[in-house]
Amino acid sequence: MTTADLRAHALAILKACLGAVDPYQAVRQALCLEGSRLRVDGQTYDLGSFRRVIAVGAGKAGAPMARALEDVLGPRLDGGRVVVKTGHGGPTRGIELLEASHPLPDQGSLDAGRAVMGTLAGAGEETLVFCLLSGGGSALLVAPAPGLSLADKQETTRLLLASGAEIGEINAVRKHLSVIKGGGLARLAAPATVICLIVSDVVGDRLDVIASGPTVGDTSTWAEVRAVLRRHGLLHKVPAVVRQRLEMGVAGRLAETPKPGQDCFGRVRNLIVASNRQALLAGQERARELGYAPLLLTSSLTGEARSVGQVLSALAREAQASGHPLKPPCCLLAGGETTVTLGDSPGQGGRNQELALAAALGLAGLEGVLLMSAGSDGTDGPTEAAGAFAHGQTVVLALARGLKPRLSLERHDAHPLFQALGDLVVTGPTRTNVMDIQILLVTG
Amino acid sequence: MTTADLRAHALAILKACLGAVDPYQAVRQALCLEGSRLRVDGQTYDLGSFRRVIAVGAGKAGAPMARALEDVLGPRLDGGRVVVKTGHGGPTRGIELLEASHPLPDQGSLDAGRAVMGTLAGAGEETLVFCLLSGGGSALLVAPAPGLSLADKQETTRLLLASGAEIGEINAVRKHLSVIKGGGLARLAAPATVICLIVSDVVGDRLDVIASGPTVGDTSTWAEVRAVLRRHGLLHKVPAVVRQRLEMGVAGRLAETPKPGQDCFGRVRNLIVASNRQALLAGQERARELGYAPLLLTSSLTGEARSVGQVLSALAREAQASGHPLKPPCCLLAGGETTVTLGDSPGQGGRNQELALAAALGLAGLEGVLLMSAGSDGTDGPTEAAGAFAHGQTVVLALARGLKPRLSLERHDAHPLFQALGDLVVTGPTRTNVMDIQILLVTG
Repeated sequence: MTTADLRAHALAILKACLGAVDPYQAVRQALCLEGSRLRVDGQTYDLGSFRRVIAVGAGKAGAPMARALEDVLGPRLDGGRVVVKTGHGGPTRGIELLEASHPLPDQGSLDAGRAVMGTLAGAGEETLVFCLLSGGGSALLVAPAPGLSLADKQETTRLLLASGAEIGEINAVRKHLSVIKGGGLARLAAPATVICLIVSDVVGDRLDVIASGPTVGDTSTWAEVRAVLRRHGLLHKVPAVVRQRLEMGVAGRLAETPKPGQDCFGRVRNLIVASNRQALLAGQERARELGYAPLLLTSSLTGEARSVGQVLSALAREAQASGHPLKPPCCLLAGGETTVTLGDSPGQGGRNQELALAAALGLAGLEGVLLMSAGSDGTDGPTEAAGAFAHGQTVVLALARGLKPRLSLERHDAHPLFQALGDLVVTGPTRTNVMDIQILLVTG
Repeated sequence: MTTADLRAHALAILKACLGAVDPYQAVRQALCLEGSRLRVDGQTYDLGSFRRVIAVGAGKAGAPMARALEDVLGPRLDGGRVVVKTGHGGPTRGIELLEASHPLPDQGSLDAGRAVMGTLAGAGEETLVFCLLSGGGSALLVAPAPGLSLADKQETTRLLLASGAEIGEINAVRKHLSVIKGGGLARLAAPATVICLIVSDVVGDRLDVIASGPTVGDTSTWAEVRAVLRRHGLLHKVPAVVRQRLEMGVAGRLAETPKPGQDCFGRVRNLIVASNRQALLAGQERARELGYAPLLLTSSLTGEARSVGQVLSALAREAQASGHPLKPPCCLLAGGETTVTLGDSPGQGGRNQELALAAALGLAGLEGVLLMSAGSDGTDGPTEAAGAFAHGQTVVLALARGLKPRLSLERHDAHPLFQALGDLVVTGPTRTNVMDIQILLVTG
């Protein structure tokens, strides 16, 4: 098997992965309409029993998700509002696309929050609300609790991060400072029926984490929020309005966030229509067709990109040396979101290219092995590439051109190296985002 | 399955791993003596046909390996010299144990090099030489090429490391500056028969890397050594005697390192008697007996400990969420040697405890999952523990005691946290070293 063959196979597998998580297709395929009967995830809804069918939502994939919903429902859809990242709009028929800033929220996010709340204000028992969520939804759709400003929320989050709080602790606090997050959207929509369709860009696909869980019950309490702030010595450092609200909450003078099992979730259905796992499962099938024994390692990969690259190369070495975890020819698939901790003078690259370069050092000298790491959205850091290919000859070919792979890695400068070797993965924008995908082919 | 059950299972699996790589047992089991016929790895040697049987070697496991050889061969062994780390000696009968410094070589290492060369000087066609190698052998047994000092070699290595040279490039240079490394010992022993028994503490078990490959042909050449130094701009920075030697080498006025296939290797047999992979394979069998579907991921794990911990926790999450890479109850096994990059004010810990703490953050909230990471030698960093257990309740139990897991991890201060939770793995010295072992049990 030549490197060119392996490269072609990896791209074919990536294509299968991406095909399975196209937001437009994912929404269309999640919804099956026959006459007035809509089937979603095994449940049937009679659209004739609803007086109004509306859509709300937020996220970078909002535009194709909205179009898919319009295409499925046609004139049965009465309208709605979905927030997308500035510039990510596009033609829609009945759903208004609002634009806001990402990754940092802005006034547009607050306006969008108010507009979406307005849309939901009219929802009643005979309303069907589609909620379309995707990556970025948390920043695009913002609604601070009464009396709080966006700045108050942001300052509180900053203090928690700096004090070493766990992410679960931070989320508990944030949900208690928002009207929409932590089940708030479901409460606003009640007693309407809610079908929430989700493109997950969150490691682990936790419904209470994606877009901060606007349609999912929150298990944390005001008492816990106080305990978190006390534990980290922040009770008297957070903005005064936050502390005030906390005291009122603990005293029982403010409503709790809606809890799992409460009435407002009785008619809510959350469905992940596209996720990293779904991408990998599709890739697994394609790999099998191409003659590889596939193994899905995990769709929750996190960690420093270079270390993850080393781990993946170690799996390839073991497969060739001992037939573990699988005998070659095999295809190991992984996905998730790694991190690059930049030093003082970062070069050009992205986490996928960095991961690939680290893997290349680990694969050096092996024959018949190829790793591809790519961002499912088609971009990797501030480069035009989605990622890169690494194989057993990457290091020696780079050295022969006067490049220094180990130094490039140390300087987070993988892009020029892979560009020189013609080993970039370039897909262009894919219009979806389910984090990153790693495909490791081991033959020989 | 309670955490206590999982803990007991992990310890039982670790015990099986360690049992398979005890240096004394490993050497005994590699050698089968019936009358004067010695069988080693499928080959039979007639000890009656040798006039002398001697042993040389170096490494931290040298003492138990030497004793095992003595116990197997009894009076048929004529003597020998094996270098061990200062303080790691012990009673032997015929084999003299020399002591030298580790990890940095000292005068003792040079003396040991001369002594071992002296032992080999008398070897002839009717000599059988046992070579006992284990971790640390490269520093314990040093013999610079004629005209070079230990300092010249060390300075050259330092320059290469600082200039971003790859490890393969560095090894090529080092082997050309030594009399023993890179096949040198085999050349000194020729035309004797050599049986080299190896306890591998090297990621990937590469024979040319373990103890710098004293009994393995070197594929690199003087021309390549010059190319390496030129590529990294070191041709005129290395010590003058090194450059001089290089020029003579390239001009053909110095012998090359012995190459694979050369006569001096015709009677050399290299056998890894204990390795991380062998430990994991034994652990795999024990896990199966305990009712877990086992999967050996890799015995070549490298990377930053915290990231490796994250990756392993991601595999556990996926197994519970989707039955990939295996359906629970399953046991994922990995091994290798991770790294901890220390910041300014490191706390107390070791790479296994750091890996476990990172895994604990990733496992937070899961039920029926446990990860154990432990050094096979029974030590982890400058602590009395071999490693630690991580599970789904580690984080919440730590927070309840006022500990801050994420800050502890950032400060490389995992030891106090695991100590407070009673989650340290304490084995005491195991008298072997095949790097680290990770055991991940997933049920539920």
